[in-house]
Amino acid sequence: MQRYFLEENYENVKKDQLLVTEEAYHHMVRVMRMKKGERCFLVYADGVSILAEVIEILPETICLKEIEQEVKNRELPICITIACGYSKGDKFDWLVQKATELGVFRFIGFPAEASVVQWDEKKLQKKKKRLQKIAQEAAEQSQRQYLPTIDLCVKKEQLLTEFTHYDSILVAYEEAGKKGEHAVLAHYLVKSTPGQKLLFLFGPEGGFSKKEITAFEASGAVFCGLGPRILRAETAPLYVLSAASYQTELLQQER
Amino acid sequence: MQRYFLEENYENVKKDQLLVTEEAYHHMVRVMRMKKGERCFLVYADGVSILAEVIEILPETICLKEIEQEVKNRELPICITIACGYSKGDKFDWLVQKATELGVFRFIGFPAEASVVQWDEKKLQKKKKRLQKIAQEAAEQSQRQYLPTIDLCVKKEQLLTEFTHYDSILVAYEEAGKKGEHAVLAHYLVKSTPGQKLLFLFGPEGGFSKKEITAFEASGAVFCGLGPRILRAETAPLYVLSAASYQTELLQQER
Repeated sequence: MQRYFLEENYENVKKDQLLVTEEAYHHMVRVMRMKKGERCFLVYADGVSILAEVIEILPETICLKEIEQEVKNRELPICITIACGYSKGDKFDWLVQKATELGVFRFIGFPAEASVVQWDEKKLQKKKKRLQKIAQEAAEQSQRQYLPTIDLCVKKEQLLTEFTHYDSILVAYEEAGKKGEHAVLAHYLVKSTPGQKLLFLFGPEGGFSKKEITAFEASGAVFCGLGPRILRAETAPLYVLSAASYQTELLQQER
Repeated sequence: MQRYFLEENYENVKKDQLLVTEEAYHHMVRVMRMKKGERCFLVYADGVSILAEVIEILPETICLKEIEQEVKNRELPICITIACGYSKGDKFDWLVQKATELGVFRFIGFPAEASVVQWDEKKLQKKKKRLQKIAQEAAEQSQRQYLPTIDLCVKKEQLLTEFTHYDSILVAYEEAGKKGEHAVLAHYLVKSTPGQKLLFLFGPEGGFSKKEITAFEASGAVFCGLGPRILRAETAPLYVLSAASYQTELLQQER
């Protein structure tokens, strides 16, 4: 069933009539040609997802009534932010799509030393819009209840200031993998508790420089390997998200 | 360091002088322009990986001497075969690349009922060659010691005859995920033992039909969900491979 991500929080809306305007209105009425009596999910910014039924279609507003709240939780119990160095081509498009399916909470892009591409603020604005659209489509398709946010840093320093917002910062570092360091990721995922905020850093194709590694370490980051095979820059984040889901959503139930 | 996947088994080669011809020769001499004294890995079909040094370059053969055997194991302890229904576009290219990085043992393609594309034997031959090349490049880049095999079935029945070669057959089934079935995958991965052969089946974009599900079940397959979010056809296999690596390569060490 179609899902619409709305900007309001559910707690602020009038519950007797759910009103939808602008882009979601356009999609419901013009694209999906929804009729009175048809149903969809309205997903509010605070993560509340409502099964709703169309009761009236006005020129710029569609009115729905609440049928029920979606009870099943579809979000990863831990909040994982993926921060990646800018990569060539359309790798970010693909990465944002897949990471959204796999439950990412927030996506950050930043210019790493080895990033070949150099994007100015204007270009980043445009890129962000595009990635937001990709994330939204992937979130609808994978039936998420939370729309991941996208932030693209102009300067690398912006990334370091983010560190204080997280419970743990982990750097996927090829050298850690080479040295046979395989326990750190599992350690952090096993001990994670619901609502915890984890930030994972990934280099661009060329990896992180010694200087970057030192700066991350000085800011409290720890290093983790992702097994004995060398993963490409765009594959490593998907490994982490899959492992996090497996540990917190599948393995917990098996026990 | 460059890796070359060779067709011979290491146990059959003359150890005093390692000889390389044909495609690998071409790449070493013409593409990489390797000189006497330079080193690379020779990976034999039986999974033995040898660090070797060039001692002589002849018109059609390059002679190397063995420096040492690569001791670190880079292969998943369990052998995972991914069987996917044919999908539109270049999704298979991408999937084979990523699955190879993530340690897949064998890749099978088959025509599912919902497969939109219809490929005849000639087209499949061509496609197989292309996918083999992609797998080889990904195996070199990710430093694998085993080159995954690719098989593309002309008929779906061929897939069912494969079942007897595996210890367990698991079907990633969206309906299982919807019903909240999250424990089966973890159950099979936790109890897996080194060398076990697991076959995972994935539908094309449209999923499996009721008829297919019944046939798989009758042949001994079990159904597993991959968490509460709906994954696209090309994302689900990567989730399974990442989870398998996490369980058998990372989590085992953490305990």
